[in-house]
Amino acid sequence: MNPLDPQIEEAWYIACQSSELGKQPLKRRILGKSLVLFRDSQGNAGALVDRCIHRGIPLSKGCVKGNHIQCAYHGWEYDAAGHCKRVPALLTDPDVSARKIPAHALIEQQGFVWVYGVADQVPESKPWHFQYIDDPSYLTVVYEVRAPAGVHAIAENALDVPHTAFLHAGLFRNDAKRSRISCEVKRYVDRVQCQYIGEDRPEGLVGRILSPSGGEVTHFDRFYLPSIVEVEYSIGPENHIIINGACTPVGENDTRMFSVTALRTRLPGWLIRPFVMPLALRIFEQDRIILGLQTDTTADFGEPTYVSTDVDLVGPHILKLMNRAAKGQQVDANAEPWSTTIEMEV
Amino acid sequence: MNPLDPQIEEAWYIACQSSELGKQPLKRRILGKSLVLFRDSQGNAGALVDRCIHRGIPLSKGCVKGNHIQCAYHGWEYDAAGHCKRVPALLTDPDVSARKIPAHALIEQQGFVWVYGVADQVPESKPWHFQYIDDPSYLTVVYEVRAPAGVHAIAENALDVPHTAFLHAGLFRNDAKRSRISCEVKRYVDRVQCQYIGEDRPEGLVGRILSPSGGEVTHFDRFYLPSIVEVEYSIGPENHIIINGACTPVGENDTRMFSVTALRTRLPGWLIRPFVMPLALRIFEQDRIILGLQTDTTADFGEPTYVSTDVDLVGPHILKLMNRAAKGQQVDANAEPWSTTIEMEV
Amino acid sequence: MNPLDPQIEEAWYIACQSSELGKQPLKRRILGKSLVLFRDSQGNAGALVDRCIHRGIPLSKGCVKGNHIQCAYHGWEYDAAGHCKRVPALLTDPDVSARKIPAHALIEQQGFVWVYGVADQVPESKPWHFQYIDDPSYLTVVYEVRAPAGVHAIAENALDVPHTAFLHAGLFRNDAKRSRISCEVKRYVDRVQCQYIGEDRPEGLVGRILSPSGGEVTHFDRFYLPSIVEVEYSIGPENHIIINGACTPVGENDTRMFSVTALRTRLPGWLIRPFVMPLALRIFEQDRIILGLQTDTTADFGEPTYVSTDVDLVGPHILKLMNRAAKGQQVDANAEPWSTTIEMEV
Repeated sequence: MNPLDPQIEEAWYIACQSSELGKQPLKRRILGKSLVLFRDSQGNAGALVDRCIHRGIPLSKGCVKGNHIQCAYHGWEYDAAGHCKRVPALLTDPDVSARKIPAHALIEQQGFVWVYGVADQVPESKPWHFQYIDDPSYLTVVYEVRAPAGVHAIAENALDVPHTAFLHAGLFRNDAKRSRISCEVKRYVDRVQCQYIGEDRPEGLVGRILSPSGGEVTHFDRFYLPSIVEVEYSIGPENHIIINGACTPVGENDTRMFSVTALRTRLPGWLIRPFVMPLALRIFEQDRIILGLQTDTTADFGEPTYVSTDVDLVGPHILKLMNRAAKGQQVDANAEPWSTTIEMEV
Repeated sequence: MNPLDPQIEEAWYIACQSSELGKQPLKRRILGKSLVLFRDSQGNAGALVDRCIHRGIPLSKGCVKGNHIQCAYHGWEYDAAGHCKRVPALLTDPDVSARKIPAHALIEQQGFVWVYGVADQVPESKPWHFQYIDDPSYLTVVYEVRAPAGVHAIAENALDVPHTAFLHAGLFRNDAKRSRISCEVKRYVDRVQCQYIGEDRPEGLVGRILSPSGGEVTHFDRFYLPSIVEVEYSIGPENHIIINGACTPVGENDTRMFSVTALRTRLPGWLIRPFVMPLALRIFEQDRIILGLQTDTTADFGEPTYVSTDVDLVGPHILKLMNRAAKGQQVDANAEPWSTTIEMEV
Repeated sequence: MNPLDPQIEEAWYIACQSSELGKQPLKRRILGKSLVLFRDSQGNAGALVDRCIHRGIPLSKGCVKGNHIQCAYHGWEYDAAGHCKRVPALLTDPDVSARKIPAHALIEQQGFVWVYGVADQVPESKPWHFQYIDDPSYLTVVYEVRAPAGVHAIAENALDVPHTAFLHAGLFRNDAKRSRISCEVKRYVDRVQCQYIGEDRPEGLVGRILSPSGGEVTHFDRFYLPSIVEVEYSIGPENHIIINGACTPVGENDTRMFSVTALRTRLPGWLIRPFVMPLALRIFEQDRIILGLQTDTTADFGEPTYVSTDVDLVGPHILKLMNRAAKGQQVDANAEPWSTTIEMEV
């Protein structure tokens, strides 16, 4: 395994948006494993390993029949718990333990289908809850992106400030005009946060849309295990934007991110909305290309060799948290939160 | 090696139809090995390992020159036994043992070029003989198909009854209307046979073509080592159909099947013939897709895990025969034939 | 590693022609390693390992900024020696040893950019010098080709006489009309030479262009470590042609060859020039195809198995020299030059 791409198995990940799962079975890969999602006749969703136990055909190539998913080859049927309920032509009871397919715990909430990473296990944790998605005073925009990179690389990228002056030149910050700020980093057992103190209103298009009149800026970047990023800006008393990205490890160097942007601004939602997704997708397209290059280079050279500096504020901490979680290491809670303050020029 | 795809080396396989081997050398892979077939000036065919001993160029990229095949790079020439007969520019005798290319035994009969799987060996066995291909009272139809799957998966598929109600719904049987039949399975040293007792005339298009008037059905499915499948139907006194498929393992998960269908029906051949190949190819196309999925899933999950039931009548026996043959295991002939009778609903 | 494709690391190779390296960074693979070439503001060229030490992005995707190459992701800057000269946002000195990128020695001469195969090393040797490229009495033609094969296979092919009657039938020699010649092979510590004695003027198009009137032929084929081939013909008193090919191992089974042809003939250059490159590229295209087949066959069979004869005059000696150099073996200089004389029919 790539040491810079830890895979956390015992965790909830978004498999798809609720609207994507209709009458047809849906194949989704999570943590390199192929799953089939389907809804029974009552609309309840289930997630099974996507392989008929009989001859290995993906159940996602079959169809839903009542409360069961049916294999396309010999017509075997399974319920959402993975129990075999029918073997056509066979005269004996089909539902024996050798014919059980591993099933993944599944919770559908806030328009997302969350699946647990380990099969046949009752999770002790709950999926992430998006704080503002149901708040009518916020404009919310939901979209999904995918990048050829691991969760860590994507999370670090999403929360990194220095790259914005180069990769996204003209959108947030620029290289020429810089000012010194303080960054307070706090690492907890299950998350890391960075607060930026003394930051000006971001230059460029994004800043001007958020706050035409300027104003005091509060800016936090946060990462929550296993794979949630959060960027929070308050600009002046009226503007509040919180962007979450829930990352799903599809496989090695392949990640989906389900993003929920919640905005409360002095401008009406109908005016803001048309700008949010095009801008976000334009920014992510630049990130997606660079993340792909990062992945390609690691493949080219056989191993990644990253050298971090003080201004890699949160990436190394995300990696530490992810590695702990991937290995199931216990943390001395007394040592947390660990904190430091770094000065940098943005 | 895939434990569910045994490779039997000491056996005859069809390399091509006689009509495919003309004046140009023909490259064919068998058991993962590249061979070149060619005809000398008398029309006799030879099969060599497809690699010039000198610098490794495939001889199939060269040409036939009299009784020899000539390499395209330096013009080295070999006869059908693999002896080097000319090294241009060299003044000494070209035919030394270090320059011999391995040659495969080859027999051409009934319009097929059969090649033995092991080079430089005198086979003790003979190739398969198609019983009705030369019988003028039968209509015979020959065609070749290819599927991304091993011989076992293809042979099991060809002889499996239960999948027809699903994968080929509407052509043979349907899921809704089922009746109970008896199936007598007999496994011999070198073959396995299943006789279906009490079967109705197959529903759907195939049955209606075979026997518009219905009638008593006799139905056998048979597998012969190393790779021959046989489906035999008698429907009423007038209709007899026997379908053979001779499988050639091209490489891992890659098989050619040369099929010979022999028909004697109450209808004239000119009326039947136009339906046979289109129907057979339509059926095989459905099988080919599902067999490809079976292969892909094994690759996806890293290993196949099949769970069979009583109604997998012949597949597990084919695997047992093939594994024995691949490993060269001797069988206690007193234990054969082994037989059992299974009831099932078709 | 392929035993028939030795990789000599401690050597100079042409990365590109000078004219190819402009204001944009240029990615080139040499010996399987990705390098970035760039020119600083004074036009001096540098060669670095093509990976930013920070997050692994290829520097070839960045841009040149003054004397530095700048990474596209976070704007890190390096000089031509690989020292990190800027880390945007960081307040401390960027130029620390942990942030140094390996640099390759580089010499630009005669219109070629030569790079040393090992990073951060001061070479004891000099790049190859093309003898006639700057001589105004010679017409010189420079071109670059690329083939899917190793340096050894390409060098052997370039210096091999017997294949010309087959692969290039009609251009140099033909199979039917042959005469016996003597070939004196001499192997030195760092090169091998073959002189052909008694050769007629080459038949076919090439010979007719070189010397319409015939005349005495002097013909040498030479190989110089690590990867230089040389074919020299004198035909009569007026015609002298010397063809060099400098091979650059791009990666396994992937080689660029930079060819310099120098001609002095009785015909004026303006008449000869239009024929040289089209003819050379036509010949090389035939070689390229056969070399690709040689590579493919080795992959197909898992290993190369070459059987040489006396008329493989230089190929086996090239391999011996390359293997010695790749392994850094010392040679007993008293044993050199080793020589032999072979008769053959061309």
